[in-house]
Amino acid sequence: MAQTDTEIVRGELLFDGNEKQVYATEDPEKVIFRFKDVATAYNNIKKAVFPEKGVVSNRISSLLFSYLEQNGIHTHFIAELGDREQLCRRSRNIPLELKVRNYFAGSLADRLGIDDGTKAATVIYDLNYNRQDLGDPMVNDSEAVALGIVNFEDLEFIYDVARRVNVLLSELCGRAGLKLVDFKLEFGRDAEGRIMICDEIGPDTGRFWDAATDERLDKDRFRHDLGYIVASYQKVLDRLLAVSGGKPADAEPVRS
Amino acid sequence: MAQTDTEIVRGELLFDGNEKQVYATEDPEKVIFRFKDVATAYNNIKKAVFPEKGVVSNRISSLLFSYLEQNGIHTHFIAELGDREQLCRRSRNIPLELKVRNYFAGSLADRLGIDDGTKAATVIYDLNYNRQDLGDPMVNDSEAVALGIVNFEDLEFIYDVARRVNVLLSELCGRAGLKLVDFKLEFGRDAEGRIMICDEIGPDTGRFWDAATDERLDKDRFRHDLGYIVASYQKVLDRLLAVSGGKPADAEPVRS
Repeated sequence: MAQTDTEIVRGELLFDGNEKQVYATEDPEKVIFRFKDVATAYNNIKKAVFPEKGVVSNRISSLLFSYLEQNGIHTHFIAELGDREQLCRRSRNIPLELKVRNYFAGSLADRLGIDDGTKAATVIYDLNYNRQDLGDPMVNDSEAVALGIVNFEDLEFIYDVARRVNVLLSELCGRAGLKLVDFKLEFGRDAEGRIMICDEIGPDTGRFWDAATDERLDKDRFRHDLGYIVASYQKVLDRLLAVSGGKPADAEPVRS
Repeated sequence: MAQTDTEIVRGELLFDGNEKQVYATEDPEKVIFRFKDVATAYNNIKKAVFPEKGVVSNRISSLLFSYLEQNGIHTHFIAELGDREQLCRRSRNIPLELKVRNYFAGSLADRLGIDDGTKAATVIYDLNYNRQDLGDPMVNDSEAVALGIVNFEDLEFIYDVARRVNVLLSELCGRAGLKLVDFKLEFGRDAEGRIMICDEIGPDTGRFWDAATDERLDKDRFRHDLGYIVASYQKVLDRLLAVSGGKPADAEPVRS
């Protein structure tokens, strides 16, 4: 049991992922998310340690989740804790990943034969089934329902949230001189069964380009060996901080 | 120029596919579909000749398209001509394939890790982008619209037609002692721009199982080297003929 600097007691390690860990707290409905200094790509085939990456990723995700919460989006985020940690609501995970794409890039550009960086004529919503043993395959709505993961009303809600999040984040990034190429959302249910956004948002799971130069400021720097990974993430953070009124709300001491 | 037995003049070869050919007629809005005695699978890697296969495939597809036309579905089919030919409306092709699936089978079962033959809790509609150079990749609605292939209203229309076709064909197959596991629809526009069903429907592009024994009576016999391919297709045709009031409407002589 480790004591954090904000009175939250870190309990049992519940999940040890490639880039993140989840710890229990004394409150069964609250968990601690801890960001590692690790980057992985291509389904964990490529992997490396980058000192301080977890700190920057935690700050960016905390800032963006705070911003979404302030704008009426229900997320798992409660408060930033230490450098690499945040306090979150416990989530009953929905095994879907939703990529929201404003531009063709990466695997989508390859799959459909479109040049990387082409603006999409309509926002693209790509659903994937979160099953690493199957390679996280693409699914569509009828398949997600047929698999029993969600019903059509859940999907309607999820797409509506995703659309609103995209409007909010695109506007914020625009003010910060960033092009929000795409980002990934994960979803879960809170204690009352309401769907909320979980996991993280940031340059580890989305593409953030410099709006003027199209310089990649995200994990593609790691995928394509472009270097300056943490420095690029820091650039994203600095620009977001400059337009979002400083540091996101500090954690309040919480004890269950 | 070959003269068919119904006064239609077969003109220029417009398209020479793996299993079908399309010929012009003297009427620019009418074409002749000709079914080859060939089966292909796995993107044309596996290929073989089966005498009389084209005859049976033509008969099945003519019967099913006639049945759909009689039930208010707009298709490209006009009339059966000779043994291997049918007269069709010329289509401005929409490069999408829609798989309608009542059961998990084949590539879908593999992709989602579900046992072959499992009933789907809701009908599954799988959209693929008809681009052989890209391996006919799966797409979803927003991608199809972003690619400029269709708009959202077209998709709504296409899914509604697919739903009605599935109801009609499932009912017909049920009466014929067949389980309609899945089938593929292709779409195009007629001279007035209206969307119609094109290509073919039958055991070459869909899965037809014996309702009592789950015996495969479709192209999976070729894919998995089960033999009796044409005999199985003939079984499908005989059973459909038995419940659909005999032979489909003969071609009327048509001259432009």
